[in-house]
Amino acid sequence: MGKVKIGLLGMGTVGSGIWNILKTNRDEILRNCGYEVEVSRILVQNLNRKRDVDAPADLYTDDFQDILEDDEIEIVVEVMGGIEPAREYILRAMEANKHVVSANKALIASHGKEIFEKAKSKNVMFLYEASVAGGIPVLSTIRESLAGNKVEEVMGIVNGTTNYILTKMAKDGVDFDSVLKEAQDKGYAELDPTADVEGYDAAHKLTILGSLSFGANIDFSSVYREGIINITPTDIEYAKELGYAIKLLAIGKDRGGDIEMRVHPTFIPLDHPLASVGDVFNAVFLKGNAVGDLMFYGRGAGDMPTGSAVVGDIMDIVKNKDNIYYASNSVDEKTVKPMEETVCKYYIRIMVKDKPGVLGKIASKFGESNVSLSSVIQKGRKTPTVSLVFITHNSKEGNIRKAMNNILSIDEVVEIANLIRVENGVDE
Amino acid sequence: MGKVKIGLLGMGTVGSGIWNILKTNRDEILRNCGYEVEVSRILVQNLNRKRDVDAPADLYTDDFQDILEDDEIEIVVEVMGGIEPAREYILRAMEANKHVVSANKALIASHGKEIFEKAKSKNVMFLYEASVAGGIPVLSTIRESLAGNKVEEVMGIVNGTTNYILTKMAKDGVDFDSVLKEAQDKGYAELDPTADVEGYDAAHKLTILGSLSFGANIDFSSVYREGIINITPTDIEYAKELGYAIKLLAIGKDRGGDIEMRVHPTFIPLDHPLASVGDVFNAVFLKGNAVGDLMFYGRGAGDMPTGSAVVGDIMDIVKNKDNIYYASNSVDEKTVKPMEETVCKYYIRIMVKDKPGVLGKIASKFGESNVSLSSVIQKGRKTPTVSLVFITHNSKEGNIRKAMNNILSIDEVVEIANLIRVENGVDE
Repeated sequence: MGKVKIGLLGMGTVGSGIWNILKTNRDEILRNCGYEVEVSRILVQNLNRKRDVDAPADLYTDDFQDILEDDEIEIVVEVMGGIEPAREYILRAMEANKHVVSANKALIASHGKEIFEKAKSKNVMFLYEASVAGGIPVLSTIRESLAGNKVEEVMGIVNGTTNYILTKMAKDGVDFDSVLKEAQDKGYAELDPTADVEGYDAAHKLTILGSLSFGANIDFSSVYREGIINITPTDIEYAKELGYAIKLLAIGKDRGGDIEMRVHPTFIPLDHPLASVGDVFNAVFLKGNAVGDLMFYGRGAGDMPTGSAVVGDIMDIVKNKDNIYYASNSVDEKTVKPMEETVCKYYIRIMVKDKPGVLGKIASKFGESNVSLSSVIQKGRKTPTVSLVFITHNSKEGNIRKAMNNILSIDEVVEIANLIRVENGVDE
Repeated sequence: MGKVKIGLLGMGTVGSGIWNILKTNRDEILRNCGYEVEVSRILVQNLNRKRDVDAPADLYTDDFQDILEDDEIEIVVEVMGGIEPAREYILRAMEANKHVVSANKALIASHGKEIFEKAKSKNVMFLYEASVAGGIPVLSTIRESLAGNKVEEVMGIVNGTTNYILTKMAKDGVDFDSVLKEAQDKGYAELDPTADVEGYDAAHKLTILGSLSFGANIDFSSVYREGIINITPTDIEYAKELGYAIKLLAIGKDRGGDIEMRVHPTFIPLDHPLASVGDVFNAVFLKGNAVGDLMFYGRGAGDMPTGSAVVGDIMDIVKNKDNIYYASNSVDEKTVKPMEETVCKYYIRIMVKDKPGVLGKIASKFGESNVSLSSVIQKGRKTPTVSLVFITHNSKEGNIRKAMNNILSIDEVVEIANLIRVENGVDE
């Protein structure tokens, strides 16, 4: 049996997952790809740090050159994270004719094009399954099994931290700040939670997912992004009452013309398969023009699930290294539709002073901006200010924004408490 | 651009799906596999039958020899169904060095070994994604993306007809016969529904799924099989009350030692992702020792979804025909555990004459057979016979059967109205 040697960049959570999987599943790996896969060098910043894995001390190095110049290393696996020096190391590894596997979503979302082009020019493979939805093999499925489909829509719960927070808020009726605090205590959320709760992480993943699904180079900066910090238990209650759950969705649509790429909290019908994806789980729902509706569900993070995706990529390269392919279908520079042009339904909650005629005034402003309403809820009259809740029919975002401005000019209107987009259910 | 020619055996539902996908998604296919894929011959039984697809008349033939002897045809796609002559044609096509794609679950479940061996000996590829769960790419995912995992468990809703029936029964509270009748009227169920409602179709698919997942040659006849015809609205009501849904599950487990392979109606916790898979949808839930819990959801039948899986296989062959691989990991002849040795929880509903002491007598019989109980429901006292419902702790099937025999010997016991196995929820 031949042996394939790996240079591992980074030995954090994912790195140790990879190490443990290669060891525990040695027999399966040998059987399934016909080669023994061995980590022969590990790049770390600090050689003296104590680590939880049983890798021999002499595998560690703090000099990338040791991996780059080792001709026996055919595959470099980058799980160090961050933009630099990860980007530089990947490009140099490819320059030295090594295949590369990466789990680095921020890097691929922002510098994917450069990396894909380098891989192509050097005739090496670049795979990055672990960068989206952790252990769920969604990228390879789109690339391989759905290669005969036109993917028209992807909708993903791709950030476990925010899904945990929203699930917990819905279950216990508590507010965002308390749940975030608890998630931080449990280690589900970072001390600086910005990347998760503001939707940056989900937007990185959507950039990668959309680029592959729609065969386009999509620029990360063109993805609309909105986080979950404004979601309140009140909104979650209204959602339930109206038959919806609130999820942070990464949505991409390609129905001809400009594509849609947006990350925002979303009302999703309770009977939609995404609605019951709870806790830290991830799921990606997609529509192919042949396969119809498809959903993948699983763990989006963690040493072993993410390691599983990386090991799957390594084995893919091992099997295909004599018949390599390029894992990017990006043929077009597709344009992302400006958010103002996007059409969907909206949930809008407005705080008003409880005076006669205010509902009529607001309804008129909606009408003047070409927004038509499908439901209105008005409740309780015990407080001087009350909530008015509207669900619109399909409307252009631009018209909604105009309506919001006009509604704010009404004297009795205290504030637009929230505005959340609504997606439809599964076609039957 | 090169062209790859296909010989299509059969032009029914799936055949026309394949034809339409190859036409509609011509550009995607060319882009993703680098070849034009063309159906150049179509084998049908009756040349004079009118068909819904726009294939030119001169592609049709009723003589398999026309495809076999056409050296330009590199791939034979078998979607004719049935055992013979499908088996013979597949083997002869391989003998003539053609790659083969098949959607024929009954054939692969019963003659897979012979076909895999022929493919290997002739150095051709044999792919069969469409044979399990229609459009859902579960086989390729297990084979490729999860190749670095030991799959420990698969649980699938792999028969759309029975899932439709059970969903409808649960929703409307109606009995099996009425829903079956309605499903037949709608075309969701065959006039002879045996293969579906008795679980044969699910058992075929489980044989294929388990063989691939566990790297074993599994004999179809060793798969335990039980259908849904005994499920009543009463059982579904009790399930709901206890926090479960009833689904026909195809279950395979490989936790060391003999494997489990069984198809039967199953209580599944309402918060399990499989519980909310409704109507004709299919889903496969699996546990890998690295990736953890994973679920795939989608359409298990229909021209386009099933065609999508076949086209995915065709493209896989086109991309790999110079670097072929074998799509069967079957290395062992694993033994299936006798059903008597299987351990799980049980829901048991017993009809008894409502006399004092009967519950005590039954409970003693359970105890004598080493079956311990976790819940008991006794309801209503208006009728001479009443239902007693038990949920057991984990018990050996053999002990359960012994207990049932002993319980039947109690005078006040009228009948064992139902016995349904219970599976646990997702590990958190």
